[in-house]
This record gives sequence, structure tokens and C-alpha cells, in this order.
Amino acid sequence: MSVLARRAAAEFVGTAFLVMAVVGSGVMASRLSPDDAGLQLLQNSLATGAALVALIVALQPVSASFNPVVTLVERALGVIDTRIAAGLIAGQFLGGLAGAVAANLMFGLDAVTFSTHERAGAGLWLGEGIATAGLVLIIFGTVRSGRTDRVAFAVGGYITAAYWFTSSTSFANPAVTVARTITDTFAGIAPSAAPGFIFAQLAGGAAGFVLVRVLYPTLVTSAAAAAADRKVLS
Amino acid sequence: MSVLARRAAAEFVGTAFLVMAVVGSGVMASRLSPDDAGLQLLQNSLATGAALVALIVALQPVSASFNPVVTLVERALGVIDTRIAAGLIAGQFLGGLAGAVAANLMFGLDAVTFSTHERAGAGLWLGEGIATAGLVLIIFGTVRSGRTDRVAFAVGGYITAAYWFTSSTSFANPAVTVARTITDTFAGIAPSAAPGFIFAQLAGGAAGFVLVRVLYPTLVTSAAAAAADRKVLS
Amino acid sequence: MSVLARRAAAEFVGTAFLVMAVVGSGVMASRLSPDDAGLQLLQNSLATGAALVALIVALQPVSASFNPVVTLVERALGVIDTRIAAGLIAGQFLGGLAGAVAANLMFGLDAVTFSTHERAGAGLWLGEGIATAGLVLIIFGTVRSGRTDRVAFAVGGYITAAYWFTSSTSFANPAVTVARTITDTFAGIAPSAAPGFIFAQLAGGAAGFVLVRVLYPTLVTSAAAAAADRKVLS
Amino acid sequence: MSVLARRAAAEFVGTAFLVMAVVGSGVMASRLSPDDAGLQLLQNSLATGAALVALIVALQPVSASFNPVVTLVERALGVIDTRIAAGLIAGQFLGGLAGAVAANLMFGLDAVTFSTHERAGAGLWLGEGIATAGLVLIIFGTVRSGRTDRVAFAVGGYITAAYWFTSSTSFANPAVTVARTITDTFAGIAPSAAPGFIFAQLAGGAAGFVLVRVLYPTLVTSAAAAAADRKVLS
Repeated sequence: MSVLARRAAAEFVGTAFLVMAVVGSGVMASRLSPDDAGLQLLQNSLATGAALVALIVALQPVSASFNPVVTLVERALGVIDTRIAAGLIAGQFLGGLAGAVAANLMFGLDAVTFSTHERAGAGLWLGEGIATAGLVLIIFGTVRSGRTDRVAFAVGGYITAAYWFTSSTSFANPAVTVARTITDTFAGIAPSAAPGFIFAQLAGGAAGFVLVRVLYPTLVTSAAAAAADRKVLS
Repeated sequence: MSVLARRAAAEFVGTAFLVMAVVGSGVMASRLSPDDAGLQLLQNSLATGAALVALIVALQPVSASFNPVVTLVERALGVIDTRIAAGLIAGQFLGGLAGAVAANLMFGLDAVTFSTHERAGAGLWLGEGIATAGLVLIIFGTVRSGRTDRVAFAVGGYITAAYWFTSSTSFANPAVTVARTITDTFAGIAPSAAPGFIFAQLAGGAAGFVLVRVLYPTLVTSAAAAAADRKVLS
Repeated sequence: MSVLARRAAAEFVGTAFLVMAVVGSGVMASRLSPDDAGLQLLQNSLATGAALVALIVALQPVSASFNPVVTLVERALGVIDTRIAAGLIAGQFLGGLAGAVAANLMFGLDAVTFSTHERAGAGLWLGEGIATAGLVLIIFGTVRSGRTDRVAFAVGGYITAAYWFTSSTSFANPAVTVARTITDTFAGIAPSAAPGFIFAQLAGGAAGFVLVRVLYPTLVTSAAAAAADRKVLS
Repeated sequence: MSVLARRAAAEFVGTAFLVMAVVGSGVMASRLSPDDAGLQLLQNSLATGAALVALIVALQPVSASFNPVVTLVERALGVIDTRIAAGLIAGQFLGGLAGAVAANLMFGLDAVTFSTHERAGAGLWLGEGIATAGLVLIIFGTVRSGRTDRVAFAVGGYITAAYWFTSSTSFANPAVTVARTITDTFAGIAPSAAPGFIFAQLAGGAAGFVLVRVLYPTLVTSAAAAAADRKVLS
């Protein structure tokens, strides 16, 4: 199995579990706590953030972006080439769809049902843009300062928070957005609403890329980062 | 005391505390929040995940699988031999039963009462299979990429999430499943339902083993992992 | 772009996201869980703490105080000079205001509306003083003992807790306090109440500074801290 | 200031903040979520665990036991001498009382009011014994295997969980127990009930000490622990 195939497989598996976490916990939450939408979002956000910590820690040494925007930024930064980027993104979209199907089946629903949950409006699109810009800043700020070992915690914390502080509940991921169109449950989004969300995510990703270039003009290695910690202190 | 005896003792103690966390927090949750099953599962899932972080950090240098499926995968990977595996698994089953008894007694219940909570059906079994496959992937992905120091956080996060995103609330552990048959409380499972769950867990564990072999064909040491981080960045 | 400009930009961006987390999650919480103020504060406190973990991990290598009291203590300790301190504090106040505006707009509110939430009284001011003293102790105790890599987790944990254990819900930050005057939502504070809070924060910060000097009279480097761990154990 | 005085001061400050976290978050929880005792305990347990992470990270290099049972186990293990142990324990009891007074005052209550909350019975005492044995195992298992840098996370996770899985809600600390007698709020305990709890804690601490000696007969340094991780993997 080639390295690219293994990396694409990791993106497939990781994105599948991520979408299962998003969709499955949404179903469970709306069934068990039917009377309080805030409690549902709390359950949904904690499950998603906790799953991200686990998935990134376990899959990062192979590949753990689970998000086409993140892969595109890696391509723009020159970390990966176009062929690899295409393979990873394919894995992400296919994995996301597989995860949505698995979640539907686990909870006794049809494998695929299109969502009827309309999500649109300037406030929500602004929310998606900010959510994605922030996600790109968190990931690449952490990686470019030589702290790759803490990306899992940063991303898990960020997404848990962003579910709450953005008006759109922070999809921030085109592959996950597409996957959420095929489940008519708590986490679903109507197919007609997906393009608006994805456009806002791409715009936010571009803004995040600019932020990263401004704040982190150069890469730092882990060793240099540790040395910098020592220098600040002595 | 032999090394194997110490390791089996660690599995006994750790699994006992894990089952206490699962069963005890379930009793507390159903008594204190009787009107919202979702709030109960939130309390139960956070307590279980938090306990796992503590138990794995503290016991990992001796032995901290607390799960026969995990021990069987270690055996299949050739990390331990059959005699050790048998000792650890014995510790896990006995420890789990001891933990259930302790939880029952702490909350003023009979030491042993068989659960009447039927849990069965294709959706739930699919849930157990996925939950266990994911758990094996998280644990061995993390270990095989030289990140043993982060297993506690990955597993704690994964189980907290999987309580929500799988339809079965993620038992994912034959020793814990058997232990949960002897408590007729929130976390209980009827003895007649246990074999179906355990079969699904073993199937899921096998699937997880395949995933691990595909994604992580070779072991990586901690030192090599750190070096790889540096290489990616420079 | 000068180093100071980059650092001030990091303070601007980080404080903007921090205030978005505080204000935005407050709006979401009060809309989705209208009937239980405690559930709202739980959602608000977890979102704020989780955001802090992410923001500090990602921005710390550039600048991640997000708080004029923290910057003033750094100045008092001689870690930075007056010119840098002024630049960072300017970034914090401007970023905080930008974050409040962004949160208002995301949720379909006017860009700026002054809060009508009066917050005053001896108990609340004592709460702010204690909250800020504790925050200074947590940050500088961690940094001065050579544990810079764990500041994000310490601060995220502390603020999540302090929302609950102080009577004022722990603003503990003059830049965030000013920003919260321009949103008439869950997290708002009336402009007339801000000076009392800020005065208490400055007094608490001074007390925290004294505590840090007493408990940590000397700086410790990361390397020395690791060596000390080994010495304690061997 | 002598080293012992600084260490006793750290125990005073840390235990004061710990008790503020326990008592203060209990008051806030019972005021804001008056209708669901489970939600109150969730808020109380998360605030306590999060505070412990912060306090241990920040104060550990000076002294961060905050618990006479832990200090007694350190004495029994020969890590500290009797004079130091006495000083630390004095700091813990005085700090706990100061923290309870501060929490009462912040929330507009009398500085001292004895609790009327009776807590007694075989189930609760068993709960305290198990809670304290587990705490000792978690702390010393982590320290003795050379993982001092992760004690904060292990203890924070354990206490959050133990609030839920023990019938007594896990006081597990004589200094905190005494401090909780002087607040007639959510977290209070009647003075007449304190001796039973403290006796159970001491018995549990002794059991935990035996467990630690069995599972960890020898100390391991951080360097050796890292080497062991590598050996397991290669």
C-alpha cells in the first residue's frame, strides 16, 4: 500500500468517525433530551470535541486533517503537492459520507435521507467564515510554532467552543457539511443550504491563511520551540 | 510478587475502578437528575471519560488495558504472550465484577442483582462493533506511532464521545459488559443480552485490528516520532 | 512587520476570539436554554475555557496574554519593557471591542448596544479581586516554574472553574470587561459598572503579583524543571 | 523566607482556592439551577476538577498536595520528614478554612455558619474510603512511575469522576472536610458528621498506601520512564 493510499485511508477513517460523532451524538441528544435545545448542543459539542482529541492523537502520524480547507491551506503553504492534496480531499469527502450512513444505520434510520434543515442568512455565513478562519489559525499557529504534539487538544477545544460562539454552530468543514446533507436529524443541513456554507468556509479559510502568514511568517521546529521556551525564561 | 501478578493486579484494580465509575455514576445520575435521560448520560459519560484519564495515567506503566479485546489485540500483535494475556484477562473480569459489587454496596443496594435492561437489535450491535473497532484504532494508532504518553487522553476523549455517537452507548469491553449484568441500575445490561454485545465487540475488535495493520504497518518509537515531527516542520 | 506589531496583532486576534467566545456562547446559551440560568453558565464557562486552551496553544509563541493585568504583571516582573507593554495592551482593548462587535453581528444584533446589566456590590468586587489574583498566580506560577507548555491547560481550567466559584463569574480582565459593555446580552456589563470591576481586577492583580513573588522568588527554566522532577523522584 | 515556609504557604493558598472552588461553585450551582440536583453536581464537579488542574500545574513545583492524607502517605513513603509534613498539614487546614470564609463572603453570606447537612451511613463511609484509596493510588501511581508532569490531569479527572461514582460525592480530604463544616450551603457537612468522614478517609488512605506499595514497589525517574516507553515500542 503506497504512502498516499495510507494517508487517504486515514483521512477516510478519521472523517468517517468525525461525522459519526457529529451526527450520532446529535441523534442521541435530541432523543434523550428532547426538551432543551441548549442541552442537546452541549452534548453534541462535547462529544465532537472529545472525538477530535482522540482521532487527531491516533491518526496524526499518518494524516489527520479531516477537512478540505485544512488540506488546501497545507497545499497553499507548500507542505504537500497537488496530487497528495487531491487524494486526501477525496478520502475526506468519501469518509464523511460513509460516516453519515453509518450513523443513520446505527440509530435505525434509512441509510440516506436528505436533510430538510434550512440554514442560511448573513449572520450564519459570517459565523461560518469566522469559525473556519479561527480553525485555520489554531491549527497552523500550533503547527508552525513547533507544537504539533498539542494540535489535538487545541482543535478539540476550539471546535467545542466554536459550536457555541458562532451563530452557525461551526460546521467549518466542506466534507462534513456535504455529509450532513444526507441525514435528516439534529445535525443535518438541507442540500440547498450547503453551497452557501461551503462558500463561507472557503472565504474564511483564505482569511485564516492570511492571518497565519502574518503572525507566523516562518516555520519553527519542535527543538527550536523548546529552546525558545527556555530563552524566555532564563 | 511476580511481574505478571503485579500486572494482573493492576488490571484488577483498574477495571474495578472503571466499572465503579460506569455503574456508580449511572446510579448517582439517575437519582439526582431523574427527569432527563440525556442529562444522565452526560453525567455518566463525563465521569467515565475522566476516570479513564486518571486510571490510565496512573496504571499504564504497570498495565492499563482494562479490556479483554485490547489484550487480545496485543496478543495478536505479538506484544505479549498467551500466558500473560490470560492473566491480564482474568484480572479484568474479576476486577470488573468486584467493581460492580462495590458500586452496588456504596449506593445501599444488594451486592448482586441481575439487570433486567434488555439491550438488543441490529442497530445496537452495529453500534458495539463500530465502538470497539474505533477504540482499538485509537489505542493502537496512538501506541504504534510512539505516543504512549497520550493514550490516556485519547481513550478518555474517545469513550466520552462514543457514549453519545453510538446507538449502544459504547460498552466496547467484554469484562465491563459482564460486570454490568450484576447491577440492576442505569448502566445495567440483562445477562441474556450480554452475549450479543460481546460477540459484536469481538467482531469490532477484529475489524479494528485490520485497520491498525493497514494504517500502521510498522511500529514507531517515541524518539522516532519526535524526529518525524521535526522533519515535517523543517 | 516588526516583532512588536506581530505581537500586538496576536493580542488583537486572540482577545477578539476570546471575547467572541464569551459573548457569543452567552447569546447561544440564553437562546437555546432559556429556562435554566445554571445551564447557561455551564455552556458559557465550558466554551470560554475550551477556547482559551486553543488560543493560548496557537498564539503563545507570538503573544497570548489577552489581558492587560497579565501584561502589567509581566512589565512589573521586568519580562517586557514599557513600550511593548503599551502595544500589547492597545491590541487587547481594540481586539476585545472587535470581538464584541463580531459576536453581535453574527447573532443578528446591532453592532454596538450598551449593556444594561448592572453588576456591583462588595461581594462581586471581592469576587473579581480573588478571581484576578488567582489568575495571576496560575499563569506566573506555571511560567516561572518552567512549565510554559502547560499554561494553556492551567488557564483554561482555572477560568472554567472561576466562572463558578466567584460571585462575579470571573471577568478578571479589563479589556474583556470593556468589550462586554457594548453588548446587551447574557455576558454584558453596564458601562457604569465597569470601573468598579476594573478597579477590583487591578487590586487583585497586585495581590497576585505579591503572591507570585513570595512563592516563586526565582525563575526556573524548562530544563531545570525537568531535572527537578527527576531529583524529587530519585 | 525558608523553603518550608514557602511550601506551607503554597499549601495554604492552594487549599484555600480548592475549597473556594468546591464551596463557591456549590453556591452558584444551587442558586442558578435550583430545580435539578444532578445539574448542580455536574457544575460543582467540573468546576472542582478544572480548578485542580490549574492549581496543581501552577503550585506543584513548590508544594501541591492540598490534602493531609496525601501528605501522610508522602511521610510514610519517606519522601518528606515529620517536621515538613506537620508544616504542610497546618497550611492545608488553615488554608481550607480561609477558603470557606472567602467563599461565604463573596456570595454575601456570614463568614462562618455551621452546616446542618448530615452525611452518615455505611454506604457513604464506604464511598469515602474507596474515594480516598483511589486518590492515593492515582497520585502515587503517577508520581512513582516518573509521570509527575501529568499528576494535575490525573487528579482533576479522578476527582471530577469520583464526585459521581462514590455515594459520598468524594470529599476524600480531611482539610477540605473540616473547611466544609463552616458553610451552610450546597457543599457543607455538619460538624457532627465530619469525624466519620475523616476516619473513613484515613482508612482509605491506608488501603491506598498498600495498593501503591504492591503495584509500584520501586520508584521510577522521568528519564527511566521515557526510556521504558521506548523499550516497549522497539
